[in-house]
Amino acid sequence: MEAIILAAGLGTRLRPLTENFPKPLLKVAGRELLYRHLHLLSEGPIEHFIIVINPQHEAFYREFLAKHPRFSCTLVKNPHPERGNGYSFFLARDHVSGPFVLTMGDHVYEKDFVREALGLNGLVVDREGRFIDPQEATKALCQGGRVVSLGKDLSSYTGFDTGFFILEPGVFSTAEKLLREKQKVNLSEIMEKAQIPCSELSGRFWMDVDTPQDLRRATKLLIKAAVKESGDGFISRHLNRKVSTWCSSFLVDYLSPNAATLLTSFLGLLAASLLYWSPKAAALLYQLSSMLDGIDGEIARASLRESPFGGWLDSVLDRFVDFAFLLGLYLLLNPVSPWQQAVALLAFFGSLMVSYTAERFKGAFGRDIYSEIPLLRKLPGKRDERVFFIMVCVLSGHLWEIFWVLALVTNLRVLLTLILVARKKARG
Amino acid sequence: MEAIILAAGLGTRLRPLTENFPKPLLKVAGRELLYRHLHLLSEGPIEHFIIVINPQHEAFYREFLAKHPRFSCTLVKNPHPERGNGYSFFLARDHVSGPFVLTMGDHVYEKDFVREALGLNGLVVDREGRFIDPQEATKALCQGGRVVSLGKDLSSYTGFDTGFFILEPGVFSTAEKLLREKQKVNLSEIMEKAQIPCSELSGRFWMDVDTPQDLRRATKLLIKAAVKESGDGFISRHLNRKVSTWCSSFLVDYLSPNAATLLTSFLGLLAASLLYWSPKAAALLYQLSSMLDGIDGEIARASLRESPFGGWLDSVLDRFVDFAFLLGLYLLLNPVSPWQQAVALLAFFGSLMVSYTAERFKGAFGRDIYSEIPLLRKLPGKRDERVFFIMVCVLSGHLWEIFWVLALVTNLRVLLTLILVARKKARG
Repeated sequence: MEAIILAAGLGTRLRPLTENFPKPLLKVAGRELLYRHLHLLSEGPIEHFIIVINPQHEAFYREFLAKHPRFSCTLVKNPHPERGNGYSFFLARDHVSGPFVLTMGDHVYEKDFVREALGLNGLVVDREGRFIDPQEATKALCQGGRVVSLGKDLSSYTGFDTGFFILEPGVFSTAEKLLREKQKVNLSEIMEKAQIPCSELSGRFWMDVDTPQDLRRATKLLIKAAVKESGDGFISRHLNRKVSTWCSSFLVDYLSPNAATLLTSFLGLLAASLLYWSPKAAALLYQLSSMLDGIDGEIARASLRESPFGGWLDSVLDRFVDFAFLLGLYLLLNPVSPWQQAVALLAFFGSLMVSYTAERFKGAFGRDIYSEIPLLRKLPGKRDERVFFIMVCVLSGHLWEIFWVLALVTNLRVLLTLILVARKKARG
Repeated sequence: MEAIILAAGLGTRLRPLTENFPKPLLKVAGRELLYRHLHLLSEGPIEHFIIVINPQHEAFYREFLAKHPRFSCTLVKNPHPERGNGYSFFLARDHVSGPFVLTMGDHVYEKDFVREALGLNGLVVDREGRFIDPQEATKALCQGGRVVSLGKDLSSYTGFDTGFFILEPGVFSTAEKLLREKQKVNLSEIMEKAQIPCSELSGRFWMDVDTPQDLRRATKLLIKAAVKESGDGFISRHLNRKVSTWCSSFLVDYLSPNAATLLTSFLGLLAASLLYWSPKAAALLYQLSSMLDGIDGEIARASLRESPFGGWLDSVLDRFVDFAFLLGLYLLLNPVSPWQQAVALLAFFGSLMVSYTAERFKGAFGRDIYSEIPLLRKLPGKRDERVFFIMVCVLSGHLWEIFWVLALVTNLRVLLTLILVARKKARG
């Protein structure tokens, strides 16, 4: 299946960024707008791309495609951009052989939008348009499952034009007819006249990028959409993620996910060794490293750089950091009686096993334990909560409480996990 | 795709077991011979089974099928078993619509045999016949990829007839012709005359079951084939597996895999608590529980009862047992100096992390770390080796050595795992 990407516009409102530079090659959240289209569409059924460009930008596109040889692309030049984006669309006609996807090079879609839209038909319409300016946006009026009219100034409309289409080649003959009648033709006119089908997809993040503010906003929203909530505890949801997403939106252009992993792990290990000199400063640094712990995953997902290795490394290094900090606390506390030692060791064990039971579940069932057993999301004992609790205890001088509370909470959580997984299994 | 299973024989050499009872419903390694066919073939493309039976056994088969409604089966009665298994085969003709599988109800195949054979064509021939009696077996002579002759007394032959065929419906007309000519027709005669193709598949376990000794032998060999070697250390390969497979071959008919998991974990926890009274007895019991630790997996795979839950439970409980035993040793040793305490805690951490890094790898990459990085199989530090080492140290009174050696070996192993996984990732 092929996809046409319209990229011949001049992006005048993004000057000076687009002074002699094509808008679709500007980056949001660490990746060119065009890269996002190619990457996300080729995770679906799209095997070849037709990119309609402005001839003056050809060199930039050639350079970009040379850097990403895994995408099979044809560049089609539009020597008459003044004839409208309907003309750009028409120029791609000879390169598609069956049903195809049409998207706009200056739009951003999150992963789930593209995945779901690929299963729809005709123009994809968003009823809510949560992330766009409704004044500026193109509206769509659909009746009986067909597009009736498209435009910025419709008084009544069913939703917003997302710029994402799944079309049949028949629509080119409508384009041809219109282009014979007049010089400048907009895409909207073609789609109206062809009465293409329309489908609804609401709630997913998408937007078009017109101004420098839009670029910044798209990055922030992509980072937010990249938060993987399933493993987040109370502290993560209400504190850590606020800090990490704020940082990620600045760092995404400069830091690779694995570099972020190494950096936060280094902070954590530094915190552990600081315990020897200043427990309070150490505890604060430990909590800081925990607040930044989400950055690697957020950057990875937002910039489409997710990797199994990254996830593995992050988990393993988190275990090292947690062990190092607890070890430091154990030596500070120096428990003497056997039962105190046993309780302290149980805190080590339980803290690690909270993660072990969840990760081993993924290995066995191939699914996320928090999706399968949602109750586990609400139980305390996750890493963000443990770190925060440790910080509070260290700051208030309650070292012994750290160990017995952790021993209790984490091991109870692990036992409950055993019961819940067994019960789920018994129910089939 | 359909499969025909010939099950009309009387199994006279298995009397008294087959006195008024069909041979294909006898169990090896906890499962009826017939169940094995149905289970393994339906993991492939087979959706419907035609089972040709002796009318006097009908009630047994109806009862069996009622217990396993997930298999779609048609029972075809052969009122004239004296006309040979060629006649049984012919009776199934109206129930197949395209290419089909033909197997013998009294044969046993391991999982990988069936998986690989389903991709072949014609008669599957085993060049080696490692697990059968070559005197008794049916031999096959193939030339130019076709069966030329089949029989027990061939002087020259290419391999052994495994009783597994992938056939085209055309072969039924050859059967019909032969049955018009004479009263009794053997399957071999039909296949010879039809000159069906032949394919080779050697080295996988399969055998036919004729005598009570065969039943016992098939169980033992299935248990052996069920050993999952990839995670086995030196001690497992040379000691533990010998004990566990011997036990499994007796227990497979009586013990469920999860019951075996609970039992060996209970032994391990008992060993840990015994440390308080008699460290040496405790260490021996710990090693015993480690020797029996393979039973659950062996029983599960040999009796086709493998489950993600079983694997998960086994791993999680192993961690509890190991922690409990190390905890007991820590309290016995009662390390006082901070550096001794730190080393001891590192032993706890490293022991758990050996498993964590491997399991987390499975969760991230969906693949077994030992298949992806074979070098890890050779490095010491796996559970079987740790348990054995602990036993030796306890018996010889070297408690402190347990901790510093484990701390060193396991953590080095984990660091090396980090390096090897990162290097593998860098190489793509």
